[in-house]
Amino acid sequence: MDRVKNLSPRTATALWSVLAEPPSPAPTLIDAVGPVDALEMLRAGELAHYPELGKHPARWLERLRAIDLEGWEMPGEDFLLPTDPHWPAQLSDLGVDRPIGLWVRGAAEVLSWPALTIVGARAATDYGTRVAHSFAGELAASHVIVSGGAFGIDVAAHEGALGAHGATVAVMACGVDRAYPARHAEILDRIAASGAIISEYPPGTAPARDRFLVRNRIIAALGAACLVVEAGMRSGALATARRAAEIGREVLAVPGPVGSRMSGGTNQLLRDYGICATGPGDVLEAIGTLRPDPLPATPARKHDCLKGPSRQVHDALSRTPAPACHIARLAGLSMAETRRALERLKALGFAAEVSQRWHRLEP
Amino acid sequence: MDRVKNLSPRTATALWSVLAEPPSPAPTLIDAVGPVDALEMLRAGELAHYPELGKHPARWLERLRAIDLEGWEMPGEDFLLPTDPHWPAQLSDLGVDRPIGLWVRGAAEVLSWPALTIVGARAATDYGTRVAHSFAGELAASHVIVSGGAFGIDVAAHEGALGAHGATVAVMACGVDRAYPARHAEILDRIAASGAIISEYPPGTAPARDRFLVRNRIIAALGAACLVVEAGMRSGALATARRAAEIGREVLAVPGPVGSRMSGGTNQLLRDYGICATGPGDVLEAIGTLRPDPLPATPARKHDCLKGPSRQVHDALSRTPAPACHIARLAGLSMAETRRALERLKALGFAAEVSQRWHRLEP
Repeated sequence: MDRVKNLSPRTATALWSVLAEPPSPAPTLIDAVGPVDALEMLRAGELAHYPELGKHPARWLERLRAIDLEGWEMPGEDFLLPTDPHWPAQLSDLGVDRPIGLWVRGAAEVLSWPALTIVGARAATDYGTRVAHSFAGELAASHVIVSGGAFGIDVAAHEGALGAHGATVAVMACGVDRAYPARHAEILDRIAASGAIISEYPPGTAPARDRFLVRNRIIAALGAACLVVEAGMRSGALATARRAAEIGREVLAVPGPVGSRMSGGTNQLLRDYGICATGPGDVLEAIGTLRPDPLPATPARKHDCLKGPSRQVHDALSRTPAPACHIARLAGLSMAETRRALERLKALGFAAEVSQRWHRLEP
Repeated sequence: MDRVKNLSPRTATALWSVLAEPPSPAPTLIDAVGPVDALEMLRAGELAHYPELGKHPARWLERLRAIDLEGWEMPGEDFLLPTDPHWPAQLSDLGVDRPIGLWVRGAAEVLSWPALTIVGARAATDYGTRVAHSFAGELAASHVIVSGGAFGIDVAAHEGALGAHGATVAVMACGVDRAYPARHAEILDRIAASGAIISEYPPGTAPARDRFLVRNRIIAALGAACLVVEAGMRSGALATARRAAEIGREVLAVPGPVGSRMSGGTNQLLRDYGICATGPGDVLEAIGTLRPDPLPATPARKHDCLKGPSRQVHDALSRTPAPACHIARLAGLSMAETRRALERLKALGFAAEVSQRWHRLEP
C-alpha cells in the first residue's frame, strides 16, 4: 500500500473521482489536505474521526479496498484538475459542490472559453428544436454551447453549435467513454472532435437517474447564462435553471404558446423569475456583452499531431467502417496495440465506432 | 346667448365634449371653474387671457359659434359626468388627461364595476384569438372586460366575455352611435345589451387615426390590469400597455412562439417589463385578488321597463328586420316618433339596424 504515497496528485485525484460518488465531502477534504494525504488518511482509517464526513469514509474505503492499487492505471482519457489551466474557473461558484475533477474526451481548452448553457425538454416540439438549433448556432460565434447531450433541446443545441462550426460541450451523467443515449454515439463523436465531452464520473460509469440530477449543477455552472428553450412543468431543465439562478447565473426562457405542454415550464419560468429570450441577442444582453469577442477557431487537432501507433492506425482508417482486425492488418500492428490506438483516436475525435466497426472522423 | 347661463352642468359638460377635442386643457378648466362658467368665459373671450390654454380657446370658440345654442339639444344617449355614481373612479389616475365626460350606450352601472383590460393585434392569429376569448371568458366571472371593439384580439375578448354571460365595455374612437368597424355592428349591439359602449367623443363623431391613439388611454385606465394577448412590434396595443404601466396598472402579456410576428410585441413586453400571463389566474394574481368576488348579474334591462313610444315600437319589432315605415305602421306612430324610439331602443340594446332595417335584440 506504499503505492499511495507515490501517486501523483493528478492520479490520486482521479482515484478520488472513482471512490467518491458525488455529492460528497471529498472536494472539501481534498482542498484541505491534498488528494494524496487524503487518500493516506482514508487508508489509515483516520477519516473516521471526522464526524462531519458522516458515513462517506466507510463507503470510500470499501471501494478503495476493491481496487488493486498496484495494478491501477490512470484511465486513458484526459483528467482535468482544478489547478489545470483549462479548468473552468466558474465551477468554483459551486463551492463545496464543485466536482473533484473532470474527465475530458476532446479538447480541454474549450472549457476555459466563455460559455452559455442551453437546456430543455427531451420531448421537445419542432418549434423548440428549431429555436434551440438557431439560438445555439448564433451564440456559438462567441460562446461555447454547454448542454447535456440528451434528446430534444440538448442535442438541438449541440447540433446548432456544430452546424455553425462552433465548439460545444456535453456534460455527461456517465463516463465520457460511453455513448448515452446510444443513438447519439455519432453526434457525441462530433462534439468531442471540435469541443469536449466531460464528466465528473470516471470512465465506465453507467448513467443513472441520480447522476443526471447531480450532473445538472455542472451544466448550470458552466454557462454565464442558462437558457431554457422548452420545458414541461416538471422538466429537469427547470431544476437546472433554478440551480443556475442560485449561483448567480442569468436565467432566460424562450416563450412559447400558452397551452403547449412543452412551454408550460418555460412560460412559468418567465412568470416567476426568468428573462424572456426572443432571440440570441437577449441572451447576450442578459450577460452584459452585446458585442462579445468571437471565439478562437475550434481547436485544430490535425492528425499530423498523431504519432506512433495512433498515426499508423489513423492512416489505416477510412470513412467506410471496418472491423478492428482489418485495421490491425492494414496498420501492421497487434490487435492489442490497434485497440488501444483506436480508443485513443476515438477520445481525440479522430475515429468512431459503430457496431464494432471503426471509421475515420475529421475533427 | 343667455342660454349658456341656463344650461345644466350636465348639458354644459356635454357641450364641452363637442367643443374640445381631446387632448385639451378643457377638463382642467372645468375642474377649476365649472362647466357653465367655463362656457361663459369662453363666449366672453376671457379665456384668451390664459396663456396656458394656448390656442385651444380660439378653436373652442370657433366651434361654439357654429352651434345654434338655442336649438341645441342634448343628444339622446346617456352622458356620464365625473360626479355621477357610475363614473369609473379609476379614470382620475389619468390626471389632467381625464376625459371631460363619457357618452354611454348601454348600462352605465357596469363602468363602476371591477374591470380588466384586454387588448392586442387586429391581425391576430388563431392562437391569439383563442387565448383572448378563453381568458376573457374566465375573467368575466369577476371583472368587466374592457377593450376597443376592433378586429382581432379586441373582438375576441368582447366575445369571450359575452359568451360567458359577462359584461364587457367597448371604448370607441368615434361616437357611440356609430358602428366601427361596420362589420362589428351586431357584436357592438350585443355589447351594449349587457354592458356598455362608451366614448369621450360626442355622437356622430367619425373615427380617425389620432382618436384611436387618444382613446387608448381610457382603455388603459379602466382596467386594474392590462393584458396584451398578441401584438406585433409596432402594435398600438404596446402603446396602451405602456400608458397603463405609467399610471400604475399591472401589465401582462401572453407569451407566444418566437418567430410569430404577432407575438413579437408581446414577447418583447415580457422581456422589458410585462408579467407573463399563462392563464387567467396570472392576471388575478397580478392584481392581488386570487379569489375575486363574482360580478353581479349583468344589468337586467327587461323590456317591461320600456314606456310610451319605446314600448310600442319594441312591441312592433320582431327578429326579422323590417324598414322603419313598416314598424311605424304596426306601432301606430309617426315616422319621427318611431325613428326617435328606434334610436333609443338601439342605444339600450333592444334593437339593431342592419341596412336600414330594424330588428329586435334580446339583451
